[in-house]
Amino acid sequence: MIGLYPEFLRQTTPSKGGFFDALKDVTGLDPLPFSCARAALVYGLRALGFNRMDEILVPPFLGQCVLSALARTAFPAMTPSRRTKGVLVVHQFGYRQALDSIEREAAKNGWVVLNDCAHTLFSSYEGEAVLAWGDFSVASFSKLYPCVLGGALFSRRAEMIQTVREHQAGLNSGHAHWVETAYEVLERVKRDPQMPGMEFEIDAVYGYLPNLVAFPPKAFAGLPSTKTEILEDIARRKKLLNLIQSYFPTSVLRRPGSDVVPFAVPVSGEAAVLERISARIRERFLLDVPVLHFDFACNMLNPDYRQALMIGCHQSWTEEMVMKMCEYIKGELT
Amino acid sequence: MIGLYPEFLRQTTPSKGGFFDALKDVTGLDPLPFSCARAALVYGLRALGFNRMDEILVPPFLGQCVLSALARTAFPAMTPSRRTKGVLVVHQFGYRQALDSIEREAAKNGWVVLNDCAHTLFSSYEGEAVLAWGDFSVASFSKLYPCVLGGALFSRRAEMIQTVREHQAGLNSGHAHWVETAYEVLERVKRDPQMPGMEFEIDAVYGYLPNLVAFPPKAFAGLPSTKTEILEDIARRKKLLNLIQSYFPTSVLRRPGSDVVPFAVPVSGEAAVLERISARIRERFLLDVPVLHFDFACNMLNPDYRQALMIGCHQSWTEEMVMKMCEYIKGELT
Repeated sequence: MIGLYPEFLRQTTPSKGGFFDALKDVTGLDPLPFSCARAALVYGLRALGFNRMDEILVPPFLGQCVLSALARTAFPAMTPSRRTKGVLVVHQFGYRQALDSIEREAAKNGWVVLNDCAHTLFSSYEGEAVLAWGDFSVASFSKLYPCVLGGALFSRRAEMIQTVREHQAGLNSGHAHWVETAYEVLERVKRDPQMPGMEFEIDAVYGYLPNLVAFPPKAFAGLPSTKTEILEDIARRKKLLNLIQSYFPTSVLRRPGSDVVPFAVPVSGEAAVLERISARIRERFLLDVPVLHFDFACNMLNPDYRQALMIGCHQSWTEEMVMKMCEYIKGELT
Repeated sequence: MIGLYPEFLRQTTPSKGGFFDALKDVTGLDPLPFSCARAALVYGLRALGFNRMDEILVPPFLGQCVLSALARTAFPAMTPSRRTKGVLVVHQFGYRQALDSIEREAAKNGWVVLNDCAHTLFSSYEGEAVLAWGDFSVASFSKLYPCVLGGALFSRRAEMIQTVREHQAGLNSGHAHWVETAYEVLERVKRDPQMPGMEFEIDAVYGYLPNLVAFPPKAFAGLPSTKTEILEDIARRKKLLNLIQSYFPTSVLRRPGSDVVPFAVPVSGEAAVLERISARIRERFLLDVPVLHFDFACNMLNPDYRQALMIGCHQSWTEEMVMKMCEYIKGELT
């Protein structure tokens, strides 16, 4: 079964390193490595002085593990109130949110803009990387690459980066051990998803990851190590998006002014029909194309959540496979 | 150092059992054992059909681990909105909240009442146990007794208890193993609070506890096993409360119509003065009397949070020790 998230690497290749330099080359931004995007979020919020009485406006359908991470040092909320101090903008699946209008609203209310690029590492808007937007950004590499774990924080606010670095420096070396343990558990879970107690193993790891600053060295094995590799993967993703768009010109969202580098491609349709198609694709093609909520308005302040078939884009999704599947979906949707 | 929470038992006594029968005898209510209050909360909310788009109104200053548990199956919020479906009423330190007015507001808005008795197992209001109030109640035994872990769910809604029991029955026996592991980790942390990686061990346990239904059998060693033992502990706590009240008649809250069985006794004062007293008591008496937020209005819908010195009441707090400490506090407060 090929899933939405990248597979782990069955053959362990030696760690190549070079990823962060290549990433800096591609994005023009300086990444501060973290165990995962959630930890980057927690340490970023701490550096900005957030505390548990400060509400952060979040979109609905946010995963429990992100909510739980936010609650370490702030208070996530779905409705703005007088306590709102920040807004978490999640660009789903590679699709940028309405940056201009959210930025206006944030400026009007004095909200800090937390730019959640967990799904959206390389998309751009009017020629600028989405990653460069907001007060600080967090990235999750395991959404795009078979690296199991790993994230980063980015910010153009130099004094904030300085504070995060100071917090990191005061931490003990135990972090390296714990992030290695976390990596091994999550890799084992991917290797054997039926393993007994799996859900508790994951809950335990998700319990401590938000406090871990260390990046797992083993993750380098699943990450690209050169600028060329990163650019080739970006080109491949965009090609798949164009392909899917050519099958479903009205069901796949277009974002004018944006260059979308997808983590996955949402195809809209009637919920019950999508669920039926998803189940059949699972049986017939051994592909996991889940039905998930996607904000077709791409504006968390005025969203339009509808269910969509989510087609994966990582390196296991070949062009041929996606074409066959799209033919099938097309037959079922019409 | 004697802390706010009960010590663990340094000598392991054989598990006595009998606690749940005795508890039923004292409260007149049928406890459904759980690993902890957070798990009882999660399974209770699931039985009532809560999902992550349903907001639950919570008081401020709620611990991150409770927020994280609630987020498993609902969405905690500090401000009521059109999404609010329930209200979590936390009776702090043994002091009942304003049951009548909260119940009226809940009825008006159609909110489910989640009765958080983690601190307040035996207090009553107008002759009735606080525990009997609301749609369902959760209890945490480690707040009162040196049992490390253990909680329960109570409800007079028979169909709800039936649903919880059905959910429990479908779960695998792995729960017993994991709750035993959790118990051992938390006991080790209590035994050696300086142990390296302690915070990550706790984060891991807190990560999976909210999903564990099993009650840890080892906890019985730290729990009373007869009705008499429970009643003696209640009498001892009330005596300590009266004693502290006699020293600070205007700084310790009185709750007319209520019988308060304290987990700890809040003494009000000016924040800076309290912090100084707390630090000195720590040095001079080796007692941990922290400064915490307490809602002196006991009404989460219209609260009056102020800092208070929290004096513990568990079995390590002897009358003599509390008297000496109160003498000292009195001298410093005036």
